[in-house]
Amino acid sequence: MHTTVGIIGGGPAGLLLARLLHRSGIDCVVLEGRDRTYVERRQRAGILEQSTVDALRAAGAGARLDREGLAHDGIELRFDRRSCRVDFPSLTGGRRVWVYAQTEVVKDLIALQLKDGPPLLFGAEALAVEDAGTGRPAVRYRHRGREQTLTCDYAVGCDGFHGVARAAVPAGVRRAYERTYPYSWLGVLADVAPSCDELIYAHSPRGFALHSMRSPAVSRLYLQVPNGTDPADWPDERIWDELDARFAVDGDWTLGRGPITAKAVLPMRSHVLEPMRYGRVFLAGDAAHIVPPAGAKGLNLAAADVIVLARALARLRTSGDAGPLDAYSDTCLRRVWRAEHFSYFMTTTLHTAPGQSPFDTRLQLAQLERIASSRHAAAELAENYTGPPLG
Amino acid sequence: MHTTVGIIGGGPAGLLLARLLHRSGIDCVVLEGRDRTYVERRQRAGILEQSTVDALRAAGAGARLDREGLAHDGIELRFDRRSCRVDFPSLTGGRRVWVYAQTEVVKDLIALQLKDGPPLLFGAEALAVEDAGTGRPAVRYRHRGREQTLTCDYAVGCDGFHGVARAAVPAGVRRAYERTYPYSWLGVLADVAPSCDELIYAHSPRGFALHSMRSPAVSRLYLQVPNGTDPADWPDERIWDELDARFAVDGDWTLGRGPITAKAVLPMRSHVLEPMRYGRVFLAGDAAHIVPPAGAKGLNLAAADVIVLARALARLRTSGDAGPLDAYSDTCLRRVWRAEHFSYFMTTTLHTAPGQSPFDTRLQLAQLERIASSRHAAAELAENYTGPPLG
Repeated sequence: MHTTVGIIGGGPAGLLLARLLHRSGIDCVVLEGRDRTYVERRQRAGILEQSTVDALRAAGAGARLDREGLAHDGIELRFDRRSCRVDFPSLTGGRRVWVYAQTEVVKDLIALQLKDGPPLLFGAEALAVEDAGTGRPAVRYRHRGREQTLTCDYAVGCDGFHGVARAAVPAGVRRAYERTYPYSWLGVLADVAPSCDELIYAHSPRGFALHSMRSPAVSRLYLQVPNGTDPADWPDERIWDELDARFAVDGDWTLGRGPITAKAVLPMRSHVLEPMRYGRVFLAGDAAHIVPPAGAKGLNLAAADVIVLARALARLRTSGDAGPLDAYSDTCLRRVWRAEHFSYFMTTTLHTAPGQSPFDTRLQLAQLERIASSRHAAAELAENYTGPPLG
Repeated sequence: MHTTVGIIGGGPAGLLLARLLHRSGIDCVVLEGRDRTYVERRQRAGILEQSTVDALRAAGAGARLDREGLAHDGIELRFDRRSCRVDFPSLTGGRRVWVYAQTEVVKDLIALQLKDGPPLLFGAEALAVEDAGTGRPAVRYRHRGREQTLTCDYAVGCDGFHGVARAAVPAGVRRAYERTYPYSWLGVLADVAPSCDELIYAHSPRGFALHSMRSPAVSRLYLQVPNGTDPADWPDERIWDELDARFAVDGDWTLGRGPITAKAVLPMRSHVLEPMRYGRVFLAGDAAHIVPPAGAKGLNLAAADVIVLARALARLRTSGDAGPLDAYSDTCLRRVWRAEHFSYFMTTTLHTAPGQSPFDTRLQLAQLERIASSRHAAAELAENYTGPPLG
């Protein structure tokens, strides 16, 4: 089988890329190792930047998002039993974010793709990307028990941190940058209306907590926990009590409780692989970079990568100009490092590290107090959170 | 001997306080353990915030500063062989800083004090502050070989981190917050015209460097060095070569060389003691807090403390309102923690820690790149560097 763009991975990055290419009349094939049910159920991110929403609309996948997505004009920070709201539109010239779960994005894109899109093969497990440095890279994959090869003009690795595409960048060429964090998140889904209209990021002496939501009927809640935590050690009652303690604030506020339907521990890592292109193989999303979740940047960075790539391929096709494609890695990495820095900033400002000194805790509170009292500090957060325009 | 305000320490904080009190008609006595020559030669800070300059003028000590001080409207950041200027007035609504060495501030204040001020005793070594919790604290000190006691209505410790005043806050009451840094500065004075009009803060793979100045004919230069560095290991030639390497930038720039007249290694520490008041004893400046020097905040924080204190004492005297005096510690600590955070930010953004990971270096560069490209990030630096108004 041959195609113009071979896409490895049917998560949001690969699926969005396929739709954007399809709209530009560029052939592609998407290979996804898992089955459809699995892919549609993976719990991941839930916050979409303006530019991600714009791209989903451009890809024809905006209808349900526009109907069911929740536009958010700010976030709440809690610290020292105080509350401070960061208003996005007034600080960024009108930018906002949307709450719409990655699972829903994926369902919308899969439905479109299966209806009229280029081929999307489930259960097609990529084994290796070969001949990356040549004009005709090949993706070896296993489908229905048989090893097959997809040759393509360009191969794109949207197959995540544990995917095979990363290995196409030779060891002598690639540089990896990494940081691990001494804490994880215990994330739960609960069938209860959110107790707030916007997300609450809480700094507490007991550790970080985040109140998010998936819909008007489903709350998404996170607790900082030690690495290696077993979710079984956290019965529902303990989770609710701990959330109550960490969200405690002077003044009236009650956290509504409801049945917890999912519970998982998420480790936290920062990772960047450079360059994001080798020969005719391109990396996008988690295949090239991981951010800790506190900045809500992972899905949005993945979307930004494939938007840049789809534009660059369209440009090459329509005008023969390879400039944007050649600049792909540099273009993406500027946004990636900005997001890595912001995610690190949010993470280290809000979490309490094991053995953290009282001085360092005071610095965190001084930073949060600054955001609460300085327009520039608040705008710096708001601009980063809503994401820079893609130009 | 009895006085209204007993001031321990004849550095810039103690001397400025004495002048401000004198102007308000409040009696005071300044006890300084060293002799005049020593105090006037101590090399310390060199950057004055607007509010510090305003206070020196109000204290009658602005004449030479206005004649010889160098107004600076920005700083230059260097990183990745690039240069970026942060313009203060345009980012802060007109604020700027002045280059005027602490030694000169001290000389001006001493001359005024000896001319018409309240008593300033050199060689008066404070031994202890007693009866802090009572209405009549006493400062025991040794002068001309004899132990004496200065009783006062209020005692103010301007005697630095190693002074005796800190001990007046009982162990059960005080809390200390501290951070040490894994690097020091090698600071040199050189008889050569500065090679730049404004300060240059340089991030380099070889470590941090700072180009400052004391006057149009004297350069002040700093190099990050490992803790425990012996200045003797740094002959002049090595210093200049290392400065050249760290300030290297694409484009024309040459660092002028000249005779090095002083060379010293400065360790780096953050420290805050809370509260800054116990009973009738008040702490100001380094006696209560230390910042690493990269934010140029040490002298300015000390000045802010004594400005707040002088106003509070004047208010009590004129209107009987003890509110501002009772709020002294809280009022000062808000500014202190802001400055502690900013100094930490400047320090950790610009220095390379031993064993620092390539990821962390990239985060530093991402932060610097952000300052170079975002008005809010640049303004956040400019506002902190020039210092918030004192209200």
